[in-house]
Amino acid sequence: MGTGRIRTALKIDREKPAWEQPGLHNRWHPDIPSVATVANSEVVLIECMDWTGGQIKNNDSADDLKNVDLTQIHYLSGPFDIETAEPGDVLLVEIQDVQALRDAPWGFGGVLDRYNGGGFLDEIYPKPAKAVWDFEGIFCSSRHIPHVRFPGLIHPGVLGTAPTTEILAEWNRREGELIAANTTVDRVVAHPPEPRGAHTGSTAQETLKEKVAREGARTIPGRPENGGNADIKNLSRGSKIYLPVHVPGAKFSVGDLHFSQGDGEVSFCGAIEMAGEITLKFTVLKDGMAKMAMKSPIYLPGPVEPQFGPSRYLTFEGFSVDEQGKQYFLDSTVAYRQTCIRVIEYLRRYGYSDYQVYLLLSCAPVQGHIAGVVDIPNACTTMGIPMDIFDFDIRPEAEVVKRDMGNCAFASS
Amino acid sequence: MGTGRIRTALKIDREKPAWEQPGLHNRWHPDIPSVATVANSEVVLIECMDWTGGQIKNNDSADDLKNVDLTQIHYLSGPFDIETAEPGDVLLVEIQDVQALRDAPWGFGGVLDRYNGGGFLDEIYPKPAKAVWDFEGIFCSSRHIPHVRFPGLIHPGVLGTAPTTEILAEWNRREGELIAANTTVDRVVAHPPEPRGAHTGSTAQETLKEKVAREGARTIPGRPENGGNADIKNLSRGSKIYLPVHVPGAKFSVGDLHFSQGDGEVSFCGAIEMAGEITLKFTVLKDGMAKMAMKSPIYLPGPVEPQFGPSRYLTFEGFSVDEQGKQYFLDSTVAYRQTCIRVIEYLRRYGYSDYQVYLLLSCAPVQGHIAGVVDIPNACTTMGIPMDIFDFDIRPEAEVVKRDMGNCAFASS
Amino acid sequence: MGTGRIRTALKIDREKPAWEQPGLHNRWHPDIPSVATVANSEVVLIECMDWTGGQIKNNDSADDLKNVDLTQIHYLSGPFDIETAEPGDVLLVEIQDVQALRDAPWGFGGVLDRYNGGGFLDEIYPKPAKAVWDFEGIFCSSRHIPHVRFPGLIHPGVLGTAPTTEILAEWNRREGELIAANTTVDRVVAHPPEPRGAHTGSTAQETLKEKVAREGARTIPGRPENGGNADIKNLSRGSKIYLPVHVPGAKFSVGDLHFSQGDGEVSFCGAIEMAGEITLKFTVLKDGMAKMAMKSPIYLPGPVEPQFGPSRYLTFEGFSVDEQGKQYFLDSTVAYRQTCIRVIEYLRRYGYSDYQVYLLLSCAPVQGHIAGVVDIPNACTTMGIPMDIFDFDIRPEAEVVKRDMGNCAFASS
Amino acid sequence: MGTGRIRTALKIDREKPAWEQPGLHNRWHPDIPSVATVANSEVVLIECMDWTGGQIKNNDSADDLKNVDLTQIHYLSGPFDIETAEPGDVLLVEIQDVQALRDAPWGFGGVLDRYNGGGFLDEIYPKPAKAVWDFEGIFCSSRHIPHVRFPGLIHPGVLGTAPTTEILAEWNRREGELIAANTTVDRVVAHPPEPRGAHTGSTAQETLKEKVAREGARTIPGRPENGGNADIKNLSRGSKIYLPVHVPGAKFSVGDLHFSQGDGEVSFCGAIEMAGEITLKFTVLKDGMAKMAMKSPIYLPGPVEPQFGPSRYLTFEGFSVDEQGKQYFLDSTVAYRQTCIRVIEYLRRYGYSDYQVYLLLSCAPVQGHIAGVVDIPNACTTMGIPMDIFDFDIRPEAEVVKRDMGNCAFASS
Repeated sequence: MGTGRIRTALKIDREKPAWEQPGLHNRWHPDIPSVATVANSEVVLIECMDWTGGQIKNNDSADDLKNVDLTQIHYLSGPFDIETAEPGDVLLVEIQDVQALRDAPWGFGGVLDRYNGGGFLDEIYPKPAKAVWDFEGIFCSSRHIPHVRFPGLIHPGVLGTAPTTEILAEWNRREGELIAANTTVDRVVAHPPEPRGAHTGSTAQETLKEKVAREGARTIPGRPENGGNADIKNLSRGSKIYLPVHVPGAKFSVGDLHFSQGDGEVSFCGAIEMAGEITLKFTVLKDGMAKMAMKSPIYLPGPVEPQFGPSRYLTFEGFSVDEQGKQYFLDSTVAYRQTCIRVIEYLRRYGYSDYQVYLLLSCAPVQGHIAGVVDIPNACTTMGIPMDIFDFDIRPEAEVVKRDMGNCAFASS
Repeated sequence: MGTGRIRTALKIDREKPAWEQPGLHNRWHPDIPSVATVANSEVVLIECMDWTGGQIKNNDSADDLKNVDLTQIHYLSGPFDIETAEPGDVLLVEIQDVQALRDAPWGFGGVLDRYNGGGFLDEIYPKPAKAVWDFEGIFCSSRHIPHVRFPGLIHPGVLGTAPTTEILAEWNRREGELIAANTTVDRVVAHPPEPRGAHTGSTAQETLKEKVAREGARTIPGRPENGGNADIKNLSRGSKIYLPVHVPGAKFSVGDLHFSQGDGEVSFCGAIEMAGEITLKFTVLKDGMAKMAMKSPIYLPGPVEPQFGPSRYLTFEGFSVDEQGKQYFLDSTVAYRQTCIRVIEYLRRYGYSDYQVYLLLSCAPVQGHIAGVVDIPNACTTMGIPMDIFDFDIRPEAEVVKRDMGNCAFASS
Repeated sequence: MGTGRIRTALKIDREKPAWEQPGLHNRWHPDIPSVATVANSEVVLIECMDWTGGQIKNNDSADDLKNVDLTQIHYLSGPFDIETAEPGDVLLVEIQDVQALRDAPWGFGGVLDRYNGGGFLDEIYPKPAKAVWDFEGIFCSSRHIPHVRFPGLIHPGVLGTAPTTEILAEWNRREGELIAANTTVDRVVAHPPEPRGAHTGSTAQETLKEKVAREGARTIPGRPENGGNADIKNLSRGSKIYLPVHVPGAKFSVGDLHFSQGDGEVSFCGAIEMAGEITLKFTVLKDGMAKMAMKSPIYLPGPVEPQFGPSRYLTFEGFSVDEQGKQYFLDSTVAYRQTCIRVIEYLRRYGYSDYQVYLLLSCAPVQGHIAGVVDIPNACTTMGIPMDIFDFDIRPEAEVVKRDMGNCAFASS
Repeated sequence: MGTGRIRTALKIDREKPAWEQPGLHNRWHPDIPSVATVANSEVVLIECMDWTGGQIKNNDSADDLKNVDLTQIHYLSGPFDIETAEPGDVLLVEIQDVQALRDAPWGFGGVLDRYNGGGFLDEIYPKPAKAVWDFEGIFCSSRHIPHVRFPGLIHPGVLGTAPTTEILAEWNRREGELIAANTTVDRVVAHPPEPRGAHTGSTAQETLKEKVAREGARTIPGRPENGGNADIKNLSRGSKIYLPVHVPGAKFSVGDLHFSQGDGEVSFCGAIEMAGEITLKFTVLKDGMAKMAMKSPIYLPGPVEPQFGPSRYLTFEGFSVDEQGKQYFLDSTVAYRQTCIRVIEYLRRYGYSDYQVYLLLSCAPVQGHIAGVVDIPNACTTMGIPMDIFDFDIRPEAEVVKRDMGNCAFASS
């Protein structure tokens, strides 16, 4: 009758440097060789490194985050050829499960240095910081952020198909124009192709490696054409995602597993990043792109996400007026930044440092909604904090007791 | 033992022009006279006109929307003095219920003319359009958008407290600066004080009326200091909202009742707008602003919002790259606009006109999330459509059958 | 365009004795004259007396419960003829809404005297008792059971179609056999036809009245053939129920409105009983009984029931071993009784009287499940108490503080 | 910093007969030697055999079920001594996770022979039958029951603490009395102590083994004093259960893992039975039994159970009148049996055999509620079937298409 065991399509080796491992890559390019072929309708298990390829350690210093080499990011597993997939099809990917690695039940959330990665609030919180999270079954807790514990909303931060040469060129054009238009700004606005740190698949020939390294699109950000680094928190266990297919075989890649994430993943390295394994089923829907009028991925969330009850979300409002009182026009990003600051102001009363809260609302399953985006000039966004993740009462009516909350990890200098 | 009946703190008269009615006003100003006093901890029922004060009719033409006088907007009920409320307190407002008026079980959603109000997608959909919704108990359906029916997520689009003179000045400063900086843009970016159309409360003296009309802040948009027109869809039955108190008595106002709304309320007049009644309980929390470190409202949603199950939301991704392929930097507003367009492209396959879908996703309880807002340069937002509001199967795998969907109402010219 | 107002198919007069009112009846019989005709697919509003026809008052004595005349129970609204309904069809009844009467926002829960009605725990709690509940919008609270407040799960305790003469005879046969077999038991085991107290519809002729009074089945209990007094708590707003049709026109009746009820409705008069109004839509499904293989009603719950989150239900286990240590064979009723007793033992620690808890778990939205019913000889049932209905912390880890909880109302002697 | 790996407190060997394995036992007795000690507040992983100890195979015959040796049932892992636990304490057991064994991703559901185990409907369905379920991540499906697929609600069917000698005597007394009173009944009503098949822990001395085999209580059924075989479907991932402690160290045991189960587990071997591993955290609450007034276990469900939305449960009513028209007095067990039969009648229309449906509603996450238990003489129970587990439309309005559903496995003779 067979054992029913699911085939492992890719194994990783956490003892080995990521850049030496076959089966991984960190650029989008149609020419990266496939690492395995998966049958249409097959279910396979795929192991994944954490997004940094193991650069961040389970310790109490944020030095590793400070010095993280972002040119290597993200180490993805794949690409995988899916049999019968052709350009114009849709690849249905069912996320049957996502788990941490059995022998590494921990993850990390980080604030990156303002000048090496940054984050949503980097002008206010420029220093690198880190929280390590321990997993106990479906739950996680952190020695760096005490008095909270929550079930994981475990998901991949990146999954996508390979672009064509044309799509790749379009990405480089439009992101290049943004970079060109912002040369005087004191921040990185996009990541252009960068040969340094590129991992183009171990089986590629040297000339191909150079080509991919030179042309390959960075895996930050997500993009409409292929999904990629969309960081959608409820694309979790049991979800079904429909992805456009641009090249023969689809060349699907996945990685950047998160044990949990809040909407926005605001501290950038803000999810609980981890190595792990993901069980996927692939089904090819012929001519799906035309049939579904698809320009960007569509998905159905899974049925087992944590449920707190609507009344258990303490929800904060934010508007598109910044800290200096400057008014923005329907800017949801400014509004959401204000919403985050409101949460930090509220939670610091209990003894948490601002960095602890910043890390927490990046990784806990907070709900970030666009409430109103038409009442000129203010966009209004909300962030709902599930109160039950705290082991004390954070309702507004409850008495505020300041606790010794310790602190998250910082860099040594 | 008493009847237990709840006191009606304000009755409206739908036969009478809104501007002649005491108890209504349409500007924020500390000097608008209170229309009633409510005891601390009292529960009262308050009737409300629809946001336009009755300008929009239950018919099959969008002429009324085309010509709507926005200077009159929003007609709010109040202000109400809450006993013992003082500046620095927090006013806890519990929304015990919201109902349509018994003798007017209908509402409307509209697309405004691009040059008279506009909306989130007005560059693509510039024409006025309208859908009338009939209520059957907790459900609504529309002759203008067939094959959908859903339970209401009924809520007030506006509730807030009065500003001080200083806050009012700050609003006018910052919004004025935005207007001044955008004089060459082909759109209205904010609404400055406007004496025309102002309703300043019927009991005000003439000189006061003039002052309020001249200085009073417009009720579009919501603002961090007092809440106001935040258009938060799940601030619904059973919710508790905590509002800053700036003036003695708080001077609370409420209006713009919605039978339902989607996140973003994208077509601007996009919720199902209606007259109705709201039952509120007011409790003063002394010194609450300092205790809660409050700069903007906080709320707890209610326990009875419609539940579809997470797997029943067909969810679309959108990124901050516009239709012309222009790349924006972490712009959630651009991303959300793209997300909306993806939904329209998907649903038009069933025979709906684009305007019908635009109206539908403005008012149905769609979930709009900020997914990722740190993966430079792309913000990613999502919109989840509850599939169960349709009486046919909209799953991607299901066969697409094009139906005669009629159309929404348009203007006669 | 019309007002969209829903037709009221039956109005009641709360000032008038129920037995004098046309449109009410309290027996099941095919010959009770219809009070109105409703079109296939029509939506109508129907007013209902409380189940006792107004015998119970809003006061602080349980004398009325002690002396309640159960021969009059339940006063139902109807019967209504549904156009085109024929025997063998299925009548789809959509519960569009249920509301308390605007001018009577209160209800009551009662423990009946052990020898006049009794209840699930009447051997332990034989005395009549009462709690009056006040409604504030979607919520209720009681001066007789302080420190609790919850949203209503509002529903009709009785709805059904008329039996044929044959079905009626079968009911009287099988229930009569049970009565005959239990003549020596110290409790009433079933209610046989009883002319005293019968209300057979005001328009019936005298001879017909006598016939119905003599033959008519009592409305306690629910029965598989027509539904009736099933007391299903989540047959609430938005539900759709499919009922067998046995007689031409279906002769549908409804009543016994509950603002809320716990699974089991254990104190018998245990729901929050009230007069109110219900909005229903009727659709005839031709030959539905054969098509659906229907012998008993089927339903789909509504989408707006209160949601607390699964982890917010403190859940008690009970087994089929009674207080005296007697073992029963897979007896879920004994198990559920033990489950109830466990809840009473737990909650009395906070200062509540046993009668208060008994009343509370009859009416609050507690979840009563059959857990295991095959592990001989013990049936296991569970009862989940939503912790959020209390304004103090009832988690097992939380410190127990005994409060002055007052008491429910009792009879004067 | 350590690896964060969780200690495995018990490993099983699926290649070895269960009765030869240390760390397993299949009777309740205070003298069974502990297999390991766990610190107060420690988290450990425990492996478990399936309830039969491996008697049932992944094949297409129900011969193994027909011949299953029930005297061996259930093989439990343990007992474990929890440090500091003393009689009168409460043991808080947090179920951090439950998983199938990595190399055995399958389980089985069975109907037992009427005369070897039986089940809830054994008078109607007396034959042994089996369905094998394959796990794909969080989902399961079966070649024996096509067109269904659902996420697991994974949980232990048995967990409990050891009884004292006195409690053990009481169990044997009361169950013995039931047996004695039913000698003429054509069914087994309870399982008395039975030396045959007893596994009393491998480290026990011979004389102790004999004593335990002679006196030890059978693990069928669950019992109020220690929990045990309660078969509660939502005592799943993330749940917290509070158990009475009767002996020093508590002597906790666990087993009978279920990938999924419906309320009632009606076909007896009805859950999806499997070997697996469970991660538990133990915390001792001193004097908890008195503080909590505890006579039976209490629990809080976990936050990640599958969510379908209330309107997605097609719900059937059943009453305490049996197939022969016999009336029972408030008998919830009879009512629930009728409810099950209604579901079978409904689902067989699609081509399923009755045995397939019987197996399905035993293991799928169906909701079994006690609706009304006071409306004499009818108890009313309900069973809600989540419609989304089917890949076709089972709503009553949808057309019924009969499919070739194959069949479940039966015995060869």
